[in-house]
Amino acid sequence: MTLTGWTLPQSPTGRSSMLPAPPWHYSGEVIAVDFQADRAKVATYVPDGFTPAGDGSCSFVFCDWASAADNDPRIKADPSKGQYKEAYLVIHGMWGDKRAGRVPFIYVDSELSIVRGLIQGFPKKLGAIHMTRPVEIGKGGSRKEPGEAFRAHVSAHGRRAVDLTVTIDGAREKTYPKGVAAPLVHTRLWPAISGDEPAVHEISRGTIEGFEIGTVWHGSAELEIGVLEHDEIGDLAPVTVGDGWVLSMAFSVTGGTSEPIRQNGATS
Amino acid sequence: MTLTGWTLPQSPTGRSSMLPAPPWHYSGEVIAVDFQADRAKVATYVPDGFTPAGDGSCSFVFCDWASAADNDPRIKADPSKGQYKEAYLVIHGMWGDKRAGRVPFIYVDSELSIVRGLIQGFPKKLGAIHMTRPVEIGKGGSRKEPGEAFRAHVSAHGRRAVDLTVTIDGAREKTYPKGVAAPLVHTRLWPAISGDEPAVHEISRGTIEGFEIGTVWHGSAELEIGVLEHDEIGDLAPVTVGDGWVLSMAFSVTGGTSEPIRQNGATS
Amino acid sequence: MTLTGWTLPQSPTGRSSMLPAPPWHYSGEVIAVDFQADRAKVATYVPDGFTPAGDGSCSFVFCDWASAADNDPRIKADPSKGQYKEAYLVIHGMWGDKRAGRVPFIYVDSELSIVRGLIQGFPKKLGAIHMTRPVEIGKGGSRKEPGEAFRAHVSAHGRRAVDLTVTIDGAREKTYPKGVAAPLVHTRLWPAISGDEPAVHEISRGTIEGFEIGTVWHGSAELEIGVLEHDEIGDLAPVTVGDGWVLSMAFSVTGGTSEPIRQNGATS
Amino acid sequence: MTLTGWTLPQSPTGRSSMLPAPPWHYSGEVIAVDFQADRAKVATYVPDGFTPAGDGSCSFVFCDWASAADNDPRIKADPSKGQYKEAYLVIHGMWGDKRAGRVPFIYVDSELSIVRGLIQGFPKKLGAIHMTRPVEIGKGGSRKEPGEAFRAHVSAHGRRAVDLTVTIDGAREKTYPKGVAAPLVHTRLWPAISGDEPAVHEISRGTIEGFEIGTVWHGSAELEIGVLEHDEIGDLAPVTVGDGWVLSMAFSVTGGTSEPIRQNGATS
Repeated sequence: MTLTGWTLPQSPTGRSSMLPAPPWHYSGEVIAVDFQADRAKVATYVPDGFTPAGDGSCSFVFCDWASAADNDPRIKADPSKGQYKEAYLVIHGMWGDKRAGRVPFIYVDSELSIVRGLIQGFPKKLGAIHMTRPVEIGKGGSRKEPGEAFRAHVSAHGRRAVDLTVTIDGAREKTYPKGVAAPLVHTRLWPAISGDEPAVHEISRGTIEGFEIGTVWHGSAELEIGVLEHDEIGDLAPVTVGDGWVLSMAFSVTGGTSEPIRQNGATS
Repeated sequence: MTLTGWTLPQSPTGRSSMLPAPPWHYSGEVIAVDFQADRAKVATYVPDGFTPAGDGSCSFVFCDWASAADNDPRIKADPSKGQYKEAYLVIHGMWGDKRAGRVPFIYVDSELSIVRGLIQGFPKKLGAIHMTRPVEIGKGGSRKEPGEAFRAHVSAHGRRAVDLTVTIDGAREKTYPKGVAAPLVHTRLWPAISGDEPAVHEISRGTIEGFEIGTVWHGSAELEIGVLEHDEIGDLAPVTVGDGWVLSMAFSVTGGTSEPIRQNGATS
Repeated sequence: MTLTGWTLPQSPTGRSSMLPAPPWHYSGEVIAVDFQADRAKVATYVPDGFTPAGDGSCSFVFCDWASAADNDPRIKADPSKGQYKEAYLVIHGMWGDKRAGRVPFIYVDSELSIVRGLIQGFPKKLGAIHMTRPVEIGKGGSRKEPGEAFRAHVSAHGRRAVDLTVTIDGAREKTYPKGVAAPLVHTRLWPAISGDEPAVHEISRGTIEGFEIGTVWHGSAELEIGVLEHDEIGDLAPVTVGDGWVLSMAFSVTGGTSEPIRQNGATS
Repeated sequence: MTLTGWTLPQSPTGRSSMLPAPPWHYSGEVIAVDFQADRAKVATYVPDGFTPAGDGSCSFVFCDWASAADNDPRIKADPSKGQYKEAYLVIHGMWGDKRAGRVPFIYVDSELSIVRGLIQGFPKKLGAIHMTRPVEIGKGGSRKEPGEAFRAHVSAHGRRAVDLTVTIDGAREKTYPKGVAAPLVHTRLWPAISGDEPAVHEISRGTIEGFEIGTVWHGSAELEIGVLEHDEIGDLAPVTVGDGWVLSMAFSVTGGTSEPIRQNGATS
């Protein structure tokens, strides 16, 4: 009998796998901010071959995701499986001669997303994430309108990692905020159980299709990045805080490319 | 020094109170279903003075709430404080000569909502609640459109209490689904710490203002109600399942009225 | 048909009630510390009639509880119902001519404990609580032995409220640490839904029987109390940190006594 | 600048890694049961080379772990990092000519444990796990004594996967319950992001040192295995239920061995 499944747990049918192979589809509500961290610190958080922007330019992005997978309809059908919240820091720079982003820290609140992320090279950990959900009627929440505030925060092991408030001042036509526009360069790393060298150590990039954004709202932002016991995200605290953003975003991941990292850190 | 605060914990400023006095404002996204339970069982879950509809008519309502309070801006400002999900069963009937609803079981996923609910007479417990969140772009989730499925489920102590899927077939102009239209009749009950008689035992009704609904989507529904160890909600399992609904809803609670329950169960 | 149950939800059998009337039994593992807070601040957190010790003397107590109830065997039988963790601050002082304690802030991680606490007058909120669990064999954890460290922390809404580490230096025969020895004086407060005066506003004390402690371990302590958005516990941050304690503790609550608080704050 | 860390996230210091390389130490409190599942079903859940016992022999093991790591003292020091609960099914059989176990389903309640498990080949998912914690004094819980009941349950996505109650009848000298005695044979599986063949696909076994058990308590057992939406654990429901066990257990993992799985399923 053959055990099947794209990930563990494998079973005779493959239906117990945490998730199926791509394509995966994502529709999200974003609250984000652009900021500058200490440029010397930023330079220590990127892999060889990635040139950070000289000014310490970063973004922090919160996203409330609904996700689906062509090869497992249960992911879209069950909100406890396919929906989750995500919070990540992006360092802006260049990979070779192309604009790129690097994610040194990212938190999510679902097991599927942790495993799907680690497979792609996102360095995911669990966090408790809360985001202002826009409302359309009544006085219970914030609407996507000038003057309204959208707040998002993430905590890990009971300490606040990031707290962001964006107060909308208006819509921006055809603007793609930096935090969501840059192709990301990841490190896929999976240890061996025997010996010292990792079993997988690669630079990887996702293959993205159908990238789409809804109305983009711009605003002013307040940003706090905390000092944690188990994550060094405090190294990348804001020196200056820039634009805030509230928007919808969607895309599909159809696979990815990867190249091994040689022992000296270079890719082939 | 006087300790202040509408609820515990009290402090010199009152700022540690779980919540302030009303008015409270609510904006929510609803997934709901009308169904019929065993009429004899239904009759055992209503208080004296409440006449259930003769056909066992009930609704089950899931709502993703954003809430605010005039007397504490932190509730709207902090999504971890003011936002939460709720899941409740409504028995339909008459209170005196007026249409009314009675909620025998209700689950929420926030401490503020548990306490605010108990104060009003909602018999709240904690549950793990997941609801399909509508999306506007992309392929990651469901849109509010014919053919799209919205699922919601609630579990308590690790057992599935209710699982509902509504598949939209169209919009309904000026329709107020039963589950959200009936004024609710609650029992406020707070034990004494000394002696046997409760310190508070009242029939209560909230004072609702500004009730508003957005576009109402109608659909077919599938409903499962489970058998739990600590809640008897399984007594009210569906015999027949009727209309499903997906809509936005908003209102304010400005206070309430109450009348003591006499020892024979009657109100004054 | 009569609806029964000591608390909501009521049902024909009473079996859906969050909890039954006392007696309740408790067996716990404690990590605690004595400390002094700012004496002027401490004085603002006690009710009329309670005289705080002049030196700002307080304790902070973490407890991992197993609990049972004579009137509902499911509470002992189901660990998800009867077991929970608790974290509370005690202000030491006098109630009339007797030594007493007052709890201005307390966190728990179970719905049963929140409601049972509010009924007694404990000002409970939900927190995420982690405590070093003692081990008896192996190298995975700490043993109750000199040189071993026991840590406990509690977070609320993703911010660290209290972080305590006790490093054991030895056992203390027949010692009852202050934090667990003082009878507590509570305020029972339950709002009305109509009008401004609370429906219940009383000074209350639990009736405790069978108080028992196991071996008491003494040690040095490190204590951090944080600044939170929704709780003013930061007002009671440590000025000096004293003895740390690790012990087992058990008792029963068989009921309580209460006296109304008059509008001028005095009890009758 | 070199990014370091045994797992993601990598950083200049390596201190943000989810966990360090072994050795890892474990001290746990176990509630377990031996049972027989359908033998034909059992045969479909083992890898090539593993011969299941002919009678469908399995165990289900719950464990409340404290864990430590030589290369990161924060794991022992912070209970929110190193402590967690685990629940797993073991199929008994032979790997070549040696007694062995195979774990087709396992749940834990911590991110560290999920990642540490997947690296070793445990097919971990998140679950909500509750276990009766033994008490030493008072009437709040169960003691390790004849007549006392220890219950454990695990739920995933709000459905009860396994519910176990062991009622102690006595101690067993020098008995190693089957569920904790068998060396485990795992499949390490890590997908590629480009192409179809996995990046890692190996049979692996942990290197265990210092295995130790405390007093072993024997008892009668009741066991329920549920039908879940996302895990096929219901395939291995009990046909007959055997001995129940309550014990302490400890060991260290110092590394492991692995051999690639060839495309035909055989190992080299």
